[in-house]
Amino acid sequence: MKWLTNSFRWLTSLFLVVALQAQAQPTQTYTYPPSQVVTIHSKLLNEERKVYVHCPKADSTDGNNRFPVLYVLDGDNHFELLAQYVDYLSRPDVLAMPRIIVIGIPNTKRTRDLTPTNSLLNYEGKPDSSSYQGSGGNEKFLQFIKSELMPMIEKTYQTAPYKILAGHSFGGIASLNCLLTHPEMFEAYIAVSPSLWWDKEYVLKLTDEKLKNGSTLSKMLFYSDGNEGGANSFFHKNLLQLNATLAKKKLKRLAYRYKHYPTETHMTEPVVAYFDALRFIFKNWSKQH
Amino acid sequence: MKWLTNSFRWLTSLFLVVALQAQAQPTQTYTYPPSQVVTIHSKLLNEERKVYVHCPKADSTDGNNRFPVLYVLDGDNHFELLAQYVDYLSRPDVLAMPRIIVIGIPNTKRTRDLTPTNSLLNYEGKPDSSSYQGSGGNEKFLQFIKSELMPMIEKTYQTAPYKILAGHSFGGIASLNCLLTHPEMFEAYIAVSPSLWWDKEYVLKLTDEKLKNGSTLSKMLFYSDGNEGGANSFFHKNLLQLNATLAKKKLKRLAYRYKHYPTETHMTEPVVAYFDALRFIFKNWSKQH
Repeated sequence: MKWLTNSFRWLTSLFLVVALQAQAQPTQTYTYPPSQVVTIHSKLLNEERKVYVHCPKADSTDGNNRFPVLYVLDGDNHFELLAQYVDYLSRPDVLAMPRIIVIGIPNTKRTRDLTPTNSLLNYEGKPDSSSYQGSGGNEKFLQFIKSELMPMIEKTYQTAPYKILAGHSFGGIASLNCLLTHPEMFEAYIAVSPSLWWDKEYVLKLTDEKLKNGSTLSKMLFYSDGNEGGANSFFHKNLLQLNATLAKKKLKRLAYRYKHYPTETHMTEPVVAYFDALRFIFKNWSKQH
Repeated sequence: MKWLTNSFRWLTSLFLVVALQAQAQPTQTYTYPPSQVVTIHSKLLNEERKVYVHCPKADSTDGNNRFPVLYVLDGDNHFELLAQYVDYLSRPDVLAMPRIIVIGIPNTKRTRDLTPTNSLLNYEGKPDSSSYQGSGGNEKFLQFIKSELMPMIEKTYQTAPYKILAGHSFGGIASLNCLLTHPEMFEAYIAVSPSLWWDKEYVLKLTDEKLKNGSTLSKMLFYSDGNEGGANSFFHKNLLQLNATLAKKKLKRLAYRYKHYPTETHMTEPVVAYFDALRFIFKNWSKQH
């Protein structure tokens, strides 16, 4: 009986400690604005693809509302950041952009999907077959977005026609390649530190070839670079060259902006560049919309 | 029977449609890095306070790790943004700052807690008793952070001694007021567009009074303003004045940085300013740490 009494006392005091702690600092899970993971079978890529979907918070007027869509490459790197920017910048007390849907596309085979040509040459022009084997699948990946992913998104969510493509590094050349080869797919393109060095500056040459002098292509384009090896880095030289090429073409309706971030690295730059890109794309968005 | 057969057919085809859709696009909830809501009873403020807590992702070395803590005022505005920045910038492939704990403090009575003096004067110096009734409780609120919130956080989580305070607008003057009156509480202070106009520029005067010439106060301080009424806005004039005061004092060990964002509004500025503030505070953080 004594043993039982002692155990009971011990249990009682344990319960009291737990209860007091619970009273002092009850803890709940913090609720983020919800996002979904949707799996789609791609016949073109012959694989299952996951995409992340972040929709605007519903309000009483949403019955008739349809939202622009931002597609973000390297979804595992930048989906949460862009969903956060969109939520904050579209708040009623901020109103710097409309509410939009954000789709993050995480990678399965990054080099295959995001590079426009098959090449084994690295940043310095030297062969690197282990890293770049299977490169050159960007056209097929863009077809996946156009004919499989977009129709599913547009069938499932309250989408408006306005669409943006955002990419960084290899995702940046994928975004530029899309503008040059499938300009009808998106209304605005973001290329943060695009790897223009890829395959002997293939995308730079393609830019010169595809964009005719005085072209009336009506799109928005933001591109940028960070400090990626100082003033002599391939990134910086190539971005200056892209900027000069666009200026030379006297494009009548392509609204473009170049930003250089000398204090940011290749990996910190997207944080500020994606913010500036959204601010640029929606600079004329009226608060009355 | 025919009725039953038809119903059965209808039900079967309905089931098939649902099943096909489910097969085409299975959907799961996207999992954000978890955060918690902790409730603490404040004797000083005589109320229950919620705080949001975001801890670094655990890894195998975390047993011995302790993390700096960033306290964010206006938690409902900027907690998610700062948690996102910290997660991204401390990733192994980014490594621009250490992993840190983020504490968001949402408001109950914002004006009471974040203003340093009791005043009914608005931005233009005119009385506004409806908005500013009960102002002037910042000292008591800082005492709540120091003697109730911090001990609970430090008892509950794996904290290191290094602490940062971040605030915007009224939160910005609260951050500066804390630096001037309780410099021992934090190692670094962020004041994004502090409302220096408050009570006939009370905090500007306090800065001049509290910081002695050649002071050896060893802290970090970031402050900024946006475009808040053009070049003649009170915000911009006051921030330039704060910057001039600090320069004049020849402070030996206060590392401070002022940034002006002429293209950002009072509400968009925190997105880029909080990023720049973290980059400034951790500019000398070694990747080897």
